[in-house]
Amino acid sequence: MRGTVKDEFAYWTIAEAAEQLRRRKISPVELAEAALARIESMNPRLNAFITVTGERALREARAVEREMRRRKFRGLLHGIPLTLKDNIWTSGVRTTAGSKILRDFVPRVDARVAQKLSDAGAVLVGKTNLHEFAYGITTENPHYGPTRNPWNTDCIPGGSSGGSAAALAAGIGFASVGTDTGGSIRIPAALCGIVGLKPTFGLVSCEGVIPLAVTLDHAGPLTRCVADAAIMLDAICERDARTPRFYRELMAAGKKRARKTFRLGWPGDYFFERVDDEVKNALDVAARQFEKLGASIEEIALPNIGDSVEPSTQIALAEALEYHEGEGHYPVHANEYGEDVRKRLEMGSAVRAVDYLRAQRMRERVREDFRQAFARVDAILAPSTPIAAPQIGQGSAMIAGESQSVRGALVRMNRPANFTGFPVISVPCGFTRSRLPIGMALHGPQWGEAKLLQIALAYEQATEWHLRHPQ
Amino acid sequence: MRGTVKDEFAYWTIAEAAEQLRRRKISPVELAEAALARIESMNPRLNAFITVTGERALREARAVEREMRRRKFRGLLHGIPLTLKDNIWTSGVRTTAGSKILRDFVPRVDARVAQKLSDAGAVLVGKTNLHEFAYGITTENPHYGPTRNPWNTDCIPGGSSGGSAAALAAGIGFASVGTDTGGSIRIPAALCGIVGLKPTFGLVSCEGVIPLAVTLDHAGPLTRCVADAAIMLDAICERDARTPRFYRELMAAGKKRARKTFRLGWPGDYFFERVDDEVKNALDVAARQFEKLGASIEEIALPNIGDSVEPSTQIALAEALEYHEGEGHYPVHANEYGEDVRKRLEMGSAVRAVDYLRAQRMRERVREDFRQAFARVDAILAPSTPIAAPQIGQGSAMIAGESQSVRGALVRMNRPANFTGFPVISVPCGFTRSRLPIGMALHGPQWGEAKLLQIALAYEQATEWHLRHPQ
Repeated sequence: MRGTVKDEFAYWTIAEAAEQLRRRKISPVELAEAALARIESMNPRLNAFITVTGERALREARAVEREMRRRKFRGLLHGIPLTLKDNIWTSGVRTTAGSKILRDFVPRVDARVAQKLSDAGAVLVGKTNLHEFAYGITTENPHYGPTRNPWNTDCIPGGSSGGSAAALAAGIGFASVGTDTGGSIRIPAALCGIVGLKPTFGLVSCEGVIPLAVTLDHAGPLTRCVADAAIMLDAICERDARTPRFYRELMAAGKKRARKTFRLGWPGDYFFERVDDEVKNALDVAARQFEKLGASIEEIALPNIGDSVEPSTQIALAEALEYHEGEGHYPVHANEYGEDVRKRLEMGSAVRAVDYLRAQRMRERVREDFRQAFARVDAILAPSTPIAAPQIGQGSAMIAGESQSVRGALVRMNRPANFTGFPVISVPCGFTRSRLPIGMALHGPQWGEAKLLQIALAYEQATEWHLRHPQ
Repeated sequence: MRGTVKDEFAYWTIAEAAEQLRRRKISPVELAEAALARIESMNPRLNAFITVTGERALREARAVEREMRRRKFRGLLHGIPLTLKDNIWTSGVRTTAGSKILRDFVPRVDARVAQKLSDAGAVLVGKTNLHEFAYGITTENPHYGPTRNPWNTDCIPGGSSGGSAAALAAGIGFASVGTDTGGSIRIPAALCGIVGLKPTFGLVSCEGVIPLAVTLDHAGPLTRCVADAAIMLDAICERDARTPRFYRELMAAGKKRARKTFRLGWPGDYFFERVDDEVKNALDVAARQFEKLGASIEEIALPNIGDSVEPSTQIALAEALEYHEGEGHYPVHANEYGEDVRKRLEMGSAVRAVDYLRAQRMRERVREDFRQAFARVDAILAPSTPIAAPQIGQGSAMIAGESQSVRGALVRMNRPANFTGFPVISVPCGFTRSRLPIGMALHGPQWGEAKLLQIALAYEQATEWHLRHPQ
């Protein structure tokens, strides 16, 4: 099978691939061809892509090759095959947002993140499948079909950035950019056993990203390891004089052999109630591993965190409807939406302005909870999701002896960080008995990405979860 | 009558008063005593004050006197008696917002503008009456009684900063600070024949000002002449390196004897439709006067300006309700509001979040109209109000042959600048046959206050409207 040719580098890190390119052990065109071959062989099973940009990828890879022949190296992403979630504008490449309404929409310009990756010399191999308009967390797309989880193709990859996560877990491309309004980077990262980083609100621009809810939307990297997330964040972030060089700082910190003196917070009920035992156990084990590394773990309180759920929902419902009405998509094309998204848009109409404004005001209270916690700890440990990947079509799940809606359960762990705008990185931290990945969320303070990456890397270096790949 | 003692300096400008203080022709205590005496004699007729701060004023004046004896002069406002609208927090002085609900509310800290004026050495003589919670434009206050217009006490002074404007027109205090969410500085300035400046959104902080609608609220000076407005703006604005020294620049520009080469815009229908003939004529005469000074006048178009009315209303309704609900005032104390304000709060509940968000989005479109106009002209001429002061209790007025609600008519001219956040100065430009003042609005671009003040001063220097005072 063609796709399995050159599979030896499907799971390279970005730094490894960059090193091989620089040493001319492999050419950018070979790397792009291998990624495209892997899409060809694996995508029929996964349905992770809406558009494969084969021709463009090879053209870009040849251009990189010419540059490299002139000894011009733009950096670690130069010549690296990547994917982008299909709600990120790409000049000349259709950007559907997983919708029927935008099935033929071809942007004339790149989104800001797409432009930044292009400037870094990355090679786009495809636009990944997502929950329609990013408005859901299963990637059961009614127009382009469901994306399947590479660990078990009966299961969802999570969403809305499900295609991005499934592709990476399957060894397709070296990184992706997703978006996260209520967990849409972290949920698929957790369910597919990869790394997902939702940065601080505003660190990565959403300009040219088709919005879901403008005050909750974030863009960020999905990768297979922590160092790759740092490399991607360096490329796509909005930089000023105070912005760290994330990868450089991470490598410098990683080299120190000293004991890790991180202070980690173990949050109360909200993050560990109604959580599957296998997930809880994995987090317990992770906490002990952190302690072995030299980290301290202390209980912290987030008394108002429950206040983030309903207000987040009200904000998302109202802002999403405003976008869809403003663009003339809804209600004009109401019958072209999948049932779930249409229903949520309908619900948006019932949100009162005064409740929306009160919801916005609640954000400061929940931020203050986290700020007080972060005065004592560097990061907070929590599950990324309370369960591993549910099956495609599964509406509810028994979790800790209680039937819960899949959507509600997956979103509940993730909404708070969209509400506060504070960063979270999800890293693999174990597997269920049925060999499905489990994700750990490390929550950090505003602009605290550099430290979060260090903590995540320390854990990754002490574990091997990220080295397992689906068969 | 004690109040008429020392009336010779009731209508001094701030610069004149400051000069007399500096030359020891008068003492700060004498100036404060005179202001208090004038309140005592005139306020029973005008009802411009909710709280007179006599004791505090004399204490402050004595402190200024001690400083001045040590040759310490803080600037032009040092020792100058001022008033503040009673929705501006004053430490230790009750701040009612004209409401029954806050009748006993005594802030522990000053609002930012109050603190700045205190730092400048100004002497607070009283807190002025206003429309309840600043939510209306007549200052017919159901709890503290209506404020009356000094030009005709059967008439309203306009609102919501009606007490501030009436006091100044009556020669009480040298300046005041008001707030403006839909014209509440400019309307009373126009109806009382004084100067009112609504600055660019954010130039003057609303911290510690009891909010009406947070994204439309502005604080700004009311004064008897343009130079005084510049002095006040210097004292209360949020300053950075690019902020002009308004008074110094104004005096420098005023000294130039050259012809005034301002380019002024004459807007289309919106500002001259449904406007009383006497007001229209006054504006026509003002335009010709500007031309005589050397200014050019050209017609400009504001095609989307009509889009500011309904969206502004939706924003105000929703944001006002959110504040009153959030503070626990409404609906708990619904029966303690005046009927008009309670009704508007009730209406706030009907605004949908999606419409609120769309209304916010419309702002950019109207701003763009003004920006295009300001690429061609320095300022836009318009009436401050389409009519002179209506009578107390008058709900509607015949304007240009059509019956209109007083509130709707007065607000219509003023809402656009709250919607855009762009600055406007209202200056006296004539009188009706029944001897009521008429105001002219000069609209400027964002951060364009310095030029607006120059244009207003050039007009003021060429006219004598500001020198007339009510009997």
